[in-house]
Amino acid sequence: MTTLDDRPSIAVSTVIFTLQPNESGEPELRIPLVRRIREPFADLWALPGGPLAQTEDLADSASRTLRETTGLEPRYLEQLYAFGDPARSPGERVVSIVYWALVGGDEAGQVFDSENVAWFRADDLPELAFDHNLIVDYALWRLRTKLEYSRIAHGFLGDTFTLAQLREVYEVILQRPIDPGNFRRTMEASGTVVATGERLTGTPHRPPQLYRYNAEPTASNEFDLGPLSHRVLTAKESA
Amino acid sequence: MTTLDDRPSIAVSTVIFTLQPNESGEPELRIPLVRRIREPFADLWALPGGPLAQTEDLADSASRTLRETTGLEPRYLEQLYAFGDPARSPGERVVSIVYWALVGGDEAGQVFDSENVAWFRADDLPELAFDHNLIVDYALWRLRTKLEYSRIAHGFLGDTFTLAQLREVYEVILQRPIDPGNFRRTMEASGTVVATGERLTGTPHRPPQLYRYNAEPTASNEFDLGPLSHRVLTAKESA
Repeated sequence: MTTLDDRPSIAVSTVIFTLQPNESGEPELRIPLVRRIREPFADLWALPGGPLAQTEDLADSASRTLRETTGLEPRYLEQLYAFGDPARSPGERVVSIVYWALVGGDEAGQVFDSENVAWFRADDLPELAFDHNLIVDYALWRLRTKLEYSRIAHGFLGDTFTLAQLREVYEVILQRPIDPGNFRRTMEASGTVVATGERLTGTPHRPPQLYRYNAEPTASNEFDLGPLSHRVLTAKESA
Repeated sequence: MTTLDDRPSIAVSTVIFTLQPNESGEPELRIPLVRRIREPFADLWALPGGPLAQTEDLADSASRTLRETTGLEPRYLEQLYAFGDPARSPGERVVSIVYWALVGGDEAGQVFDSENVAWFRADDLPELAFDHNLIVDYALWRLRTKLEYSRIAHGFLGDTFTLAQLREVYEVILQRPIDPGNFRRTMEASGTVVATGERLTGTPHRPPQLYRYNAEPTASNEFDLGPLSHRVLTAKESA
């Protein structure tokens, strides 16, 4: 007879990236973690997530986790990988299907920091529960790779943004300075963003132009997920 | 009380690509399918796979399926995606973690074609069980995308091959002719392949040089899976 213990169980976890300012006001790439209150790995920090409900879609489960942990809706959500090493969870076989998400920094700034949820620098984490350090390393690698050939950077920003704000996203994530003139020319040539005709308010003098993400298809965004593209939530679709 | 039916179950399936000659001797991209002998979708063709065993790693499960279906070891094996639509399998919630694999055409030519296993043209399939048509479409898209920026084409060939054989792999999969001179220059400049110093035997006159895959790391193969690269089987590692 098949018993419960003969079947691996499924969890869905989410790596949620945002940019938040540190004490000096410099933006940092951060993720929220949840402190585990029971074994295995009690007291260690872990990615937010939980068991897949019988009638819930995978991406819906990841969105729900994100909402419950941060109070936010994702601006970008994509499946990362299924982690299934038989030894990754002591005492029980759990396959974790992991998503990664981007949330806007302005939104994330309003988020509660309770005793058991906190934001950490993505590239300077403590020892996490399960194989979650490996999972975050892989998510960081995917974020950096994808930023180079796809149009996801605006997922960290609001609906409109200046080119300097967009460039700062690239600089923080790729961890290198980017020449402002080259960046402007590349962005304008790529058709990734379009000028809104409006300007940033609240700046003293010669306020910079505001841009928005260009939702028209271009060669570069066909790269995303091909036949599964409808399964990626973008700011536009989730709004 | 939690019962078996409260938990989704996990299957692992594999899209196995190979190149095989058609009646005219032209290579075609093909995948093996298995005829279902019970409901749901009895008599329809489906991707090879089955339930994940409690103690089996995901990639091991995909390799086992491949071996049981075709008698072959994969030359390339990578996780594709986890498909978990609650409605994809009537009567039971099944999440399928799908891998894709390349096997060499010479090896695949020796494979049995039993009544319930057959090779089909990957771009001309009948209606398959479950969401397997969508899965194959996505795997085809991933194969074509990856062929453009990564070094996987040799997975269809033996340990040594001529540049004409390698170019034919690209032509069949990308479905467009490629200029032989440009191809030679691109391959030589990329460092993807190295000349063995040997020549093809059995050809009448001026036999072409044999090349092998260059296992040294280059910029282009760092693209593969980043921190998870050790989870991709290549011809070298699986040999």
